[in-house]
Amino acid sequence: MFGAHPDDIEFGCGGVIAREAVGGRPIHFVVCSRGEAASNGTPAGREREAKRAAKLLGATIEFVTLGGDAHFERRPAFAMKLAAIIRRRRPGVVLAPSVVENQHPDHVVLGHLVRDAARLARFGGLKELRRVRPHAIAQLFFYAVAPEAEPTNLGRVLVDISDVDVMDRWTAAMNLHASQMRTRNYVELQTTRARLNGLRAGVEYAQPLFPSDALVVDSLATLQRGARRF
Amino acid sequence: MFGAHPDDIEFGCGGVIAREAVGGRPIHFVVCSRGEAASNGTPAGREREAKRAAKLLGATIEFVTLGGDAHFERRPAFAMKLAAIIRRRRPGVVLAPSVVENQHPDHVVLGHLVRDAARLARFGGLKELRRVRPHAIAQLFFYAVAPEAEPTNLGRVLVDISDVDVMDRWTAAMNLHASQMRTRNYVELQTTRARLNGLRAGVEYAQPLFPSDALVVDSLATLQRGARRF
Amino acid sequence: MFGAHPDDIEFGCGGVIAREAVGGRPIHFVVCSRGEAASNGTPAGREREAKRAAKLLGATIEFVTLGGDAHFERRPAFAMKLAAIIRRRRPGVVLAPSVVENQHPDHVVLGHLVRDAARLARFGGLKELRRVRPHAIAQLFFYAVAPEAEPTNLGRVLVDISDVDVMDRWTAAMNLHASQMRTRNYVELQTTRARLNGLRAGVEYAQPLFPSDALVVDSLATLQRGARRF
Amino acid sequence: MFGAHPDDIEFGCGGVIAREAVGGRPIHFVVCSRGEAASNGTPAGREREAKRAAKLLGATIEFVTLGGDAHFERRPAFAMKLAAIIRRRRPGVVLAPSVVENQHPDHVVLGHLVRDAARLARFGGLKELRRVRPHAIAQLFFYAVAPEAEPTNLGRVLVDISDVDVMDRWTAAMNLHASQMRTRNYVELQTTRARLNGLRAGVEYAQPLFPSDALVVDSLATLQRGARRF
Amino acid sequence: MFGAHPDDIEFGCGGVIAREAVGGRPIHFVVCSRGEAASNGTPAGREREAKRAAKLLGATIEFVTLGGDAHFERRPAFAMKLAAIIRRRRPGVVLAPSVVENQHPDHVVLGHLVRDAARLARFGGLKELRRVRPHAIAQLFFYAVAPEAEPTNLGRVLVDISDVDVMDRWTAAMNLHASQMRTRNYVELQTTRARLNGLRAGVEYAQPLFPSDALVVDSLATLQRGARRF
Amino acid sequence: MFGAHPDDIEFGCGGVIAREAVGGRPIHFVVCSRGEAASNGTPAGREREAKRAAKLLGATIEFVTLGGDAHFERRPAFAMKLAAIIRRRRPGVVLAPSVVENQHPDHVVLGHLVRDAARLARFGGLKELRRVRPHAIAQLFFYAVAPEAEPTNLGRVLVDISDVDVMDRWTAAMNLHASQMRTRNYVELQTTRARLNGLRAGVEYAQPLFPSDALVVDSLATLQRGARRF
Repeated sequence: MFGAHPDDIEFGCGGVIAREAVGGRPIHFVVCSRGEAASNGTPAGREREAKRAAKLLGATIEFVTLGGDAHFERRPAFAMKLAAIIRRRRPGVVLAPSVVENQHPDHVVLGHLVRDAARLARFGGLKELRRVRPHAIAQLFFYAVAPEAEPTNLGRVLVDISDVDVMDRWTAAMNLHASQMRTRNYVELQTTRARLNGLRAGVEYAQPLFPSDALVVDSLATLQRGARRF
Repeated sequence: MFGAHPDDIEFGCGGVIAREAVGGRPIHFVVCSRGEAASNGTPAGREREAKRAAKLLGATIEFVTLGGDAHFERRPAFAMKLAAIIRRRRPGVVLAPSVVENQHPDHVVLGHLVRDAARLARFGGLKELRRVRPHAIAQLFFYAVAPEAEPTNLGRVLVDISDVDVMDRWTAAMNLHASQMRTRNYVELQTTRARLNGLRAGVEYAQPLFPSDALVVDSLATLQRGARRF
Repeated sequence: MFGAHPDDIEFGCGGVIAREAVGGRPIHFVVCSRGEAASNGTPAGREREAKRAAKLLGATIEFVTLGGDAHFERRPAFAMKLAAIIRRRRPGVVLAPSVVENQHPDHVVLGHLVRDAARLARFGGLKELRRVRPHAIAQLFFYAVAPEAEPTNLGRVLVDISDVDVMDRWTAAMNLHASQMRTRNYVELQTTRARLNGLRAGVEYAQPLFPSDALVVDSLATLQRGARRF
Repeated sequence: MFGAHPDDIEFGCGGVIAREAVGGRPIHFVVCSRGEAASNGTPAGREREAKRAAKLLGATIEFVTLGGDAHFERRPAFAMKLAAIIRRRRPGVVLAPSVVENQHPDHVVLGHLVRDAARLARFGGLKELRRVRPHAIAQLFFYAVAPEAEPTNLGRVLVDISDVDVMDRWTAAMNLHASQMRTRNYVELQTTRARLNGLRAGVEYAQPLFPSDALVVDSLATLQRGARRF
Repeated sequence: MFGAHPDDIEFGCGGVIAREAVGGRPIHFVVCSRGEAASNGTPAGREREAKRAAKLLGATIEFVTLGGDAHFERRPAFAMKLAAIIRRRRPGVVLAPSVVENQHPDHVVLGHLVRDAARLARFGGLKELRRVRPHAIAQLFFYAVAPEAEPTNLGRVLVDISDVDVMDRWTAAMNLHASQMRTRNYVELQTTRARLNGLRAGVEYAQPLFPSDALVVDSLATLQRGARRF
Repeated sequence: MFGAHPDDIEFGCGGVIAREAVGGRPIHFVVCSRGEAASNGTPAGREREAKRAAKLLGATIEFVTLGGDAHFERRPAFAMKLAAIIRRRRPGVVLAPSVVENQHPDHVVLGHLVRDAARLARFGGLKELRRVRPHAIAQLFFYAVAPEAEPTNLGRVLVDISDVDVMDRWTAAMNLHASQMRTRNYVELQTTRARLNGLRAGVEYAQPLFPSDALVVDSLATLQRGARRF
């Protein structure tokens, strides 16, 4: 789970995280800035908010720097930094912000860096990564922090997050970012999106993810539902 | 499972069918012509070949006419015909040829008709369909009879068909269409495609399907594999 | 204003209609079926609902048949029928359902028919249309009855419908389709969409339209707002 | 108004500028190099040409460096530089070269930098920009310096520049870049494009712009014309 | 060479035809209406104009009916009619109007019919076509009658038509359609397009074609030029 | 001919190279790393393998550094480096890896750098390139090292490489990269792709290239074949 700013994961796919946490899967957040460019909140305060939100969602968390908030750059050194984390944590599924261009530039850059890092983590000859053995992730999903960031050229997977416990955890986690709540617009944006996706999927609430690579399955038995309500 | 001609299902997604049959799922073929426009084979002979191939794949089969081979038309009456079958068979998952334009015109038309039929099957007020109660399918997947017919604007799901028993059944089913074997090009085209998709997915053989609508899942636990080999 | 079924206009772009009606522009609805294929309601009842809703929105209304509900076909005779109406009413701006394929087939067909009709209305030599002199519309906008029907290859115009009077009229007009209110899902779908588009546009509520052709303007002075909130 | 080289604005959207200048709107050019990599002209000479052309078009002008001609880079420091200008000038509408990849690399980079800068200009916590208070622009339009640079995934707005005074000013402004007139190809390219767009729009001459974000309008009353001639 | 109306071929790709005629290749026009829906000209007059223009371009010509001007329909019977002509004439290269949707509906339908017909012409079992032996064309190119009709999802081939003799023949052929010259807009539209494409290609005049299928070549030796001027 | 790693050219378009070499055209490889990040092989060993493979294919070869394997960056200084080589070698046709994003990051960066370099090579005022006179290439083709890297928004050219001598040279050249042969997957991937493309083109084997810019031709006489088998 990679997020550019202390609240991106919670806002962009926090419902999915809550759902997987409730299901007992281990989750780790990598937050790549402390929100130091934002109009509201202090870096220290935002780190505290992020840690509390991660804890609530049942996730461990670490912070890493990729040039600083609003200064992310698509440089190999940063991709290596993320690849080192991937090797260390050895995840199966990785989530990152989408690479749709017209959104916060840090999100785009981070999406690219994670996708590249997931490749670099496999290559045996990289000097910077020599200390940890290579690792191939199973799948990379993109999430969209805003509707504008939803890719239209990838498949769409809607995760059902209707469970009351899941929704409660998610909204509580968003609200823990108190410094960003001058207006409630962000929370409303995300719950409105989730309700709209839920209506499309025939459930209460759903959040979309976008697989970077073709899904591989043993059988269609696991793909028996589709968003075909309207 | 809808196919325009007696061998389309076998060639376009026969490996997936064999895989699901081996897994014990009930499968029904709807073949919409008897191949009467083809350069080789007779309608009666091709019907026999299709029935034998369906049996080998563990599927039941029926024939329906949508204007005749090379004469398919996108008319409401034909969509109703298919919707009636959907109501009668009440499938969860439906497969149809893709609607990519530059391919055999019957395939395009059938893809459109099945997609429309899957909607019409839900509407309670249709006079022609009054006798059978409405039915909503869960998901529609498109398959591609040729590489040119693979959509680039939908997600891609690769079904692992490496199992020896699955591959044997599939290739045997293709070969049962003896009238179409003047050259072995069709069989080679499909097994070459399946091997290429297998290499991409990190397995022996795989066949691609393209979900018409967003996939809905309860958790990411069922989507733990991706085609990330190269 | 063209709609396939008695409630499509209200649900797909009723807020825009309400906005223009409040602004004093004359509006005319052309409804192309009486919803006779729907699970709920009778044709006569639905016609009554549509007339009341049109009246509430300040629009005149007429009904025309293009093969019947769920039986629309893309045939020149139907395009001529619509072209005749365009010649008779001589509108500047025309609205029609989008031609995105994966939605109710009648919507797709109607979108195509209206776009074609808007061309045919200009041609001087058409025998069927001889009685009324040719007319060239100024612009055709598509609306989307469901989120899945929003085109991704056209520009997007968000019309601000936040005005309380506008929103009241719109929701009242939707609710007049009482036969379709077994669940409130349709109304909630549309108001949720409008709120999400409003949040993107920095207003309370907005509805999207999609211009079929390049917009022509005298100056950028009229295009001074953009959806740039997130 | 951002341009990569001293003549890009004039060639890419000078007609629109002339139109708005004639309409009395204040216009400011930000030129990001002195054309020092070009085959013809000297940096000092080109700066002079650009200043004269800006004056003729009724615009103020400033020069800024983003690594030098043919050396533009997509780096946060450069985006901050442009964001600082946006805060200082506080424009409503901003124009920048499109981000279509297959064109002069400086144009692509500048398009990306301006789009990012327009976001950064809003963020309250950026140290480099602390001295000027945040500013949110209303809309960003892309222009295309060459036909190849026209985006196909955004809406298209054609600005009518047929007015004789507007056309005269525009062509005069282009011709002021005398050092680039070894051949007249550039001027002819642009007037040919403008005539072709004019024919499509039903006017004498028109220039295309491409809104980066959905247009927001109060009513359709301002969007009553479309390019529907053929 | 297929054209929907008596002047479509001349306007949409007449320069290419003139170029091939000058090169000595045999050319055959199939015109699918007599322009009976047009605002100007009579069917008989337009047939005469088309015959003279074809003669000037060194082409033979025949007329066929697909429902009548402004009444083209995508029906198998019409595709068979065109397939029969393909079998009879046995061309290598075929040209047809593009299938881009937003243009004169007859052009779209004809593009689809020709593409389908080129497939049907190969199938040995078609009763309607039994009298002439199957034929496989080598390549299908689409042409665009208007700029809006240029596909953006296919490759683009620019044919150099700068030769004075070629240009003279082409413009003369367009002008032979005297009934359509109430305004000179159509001729100017096409020569302006050709000049713009010429500037892009580094020649005087060029016309674009869009290959329906991947080009197959023996060597890159024949593809040594590209439109890389700007 | 540009390749990011010592075997990319051979794997991605070695068949085309063998074809052109057999045809007697001079070929030059520019390899931009020594594969030092790979899991297998040493930089010195891989350089030797690349030299032998180039020799076998009849090509000269040089090595250049763009930050090191897995560290390529899209920086102007690197584009200048490649532009200098283009000026020095003065090629007509240039080949580079595609810029499709979801592949090895070095490939994407190199594709962008070469495309930019081909432009920069034309500009007369660049100080770094002052010593060699400007050069304009004729055409840039992209090749795809893996199926995922094939662009879907450009035209596709299939080069027939069925000739036995061509295929032998190509497979021998791939096998010379002995350090990468721990599994034979890469060779099988490429020959499977070539067979599949061959089946589509109606030949034994074919490799795809993707022209960056519109093809310019004197006549359609050179484009008489298309991939229209299925």
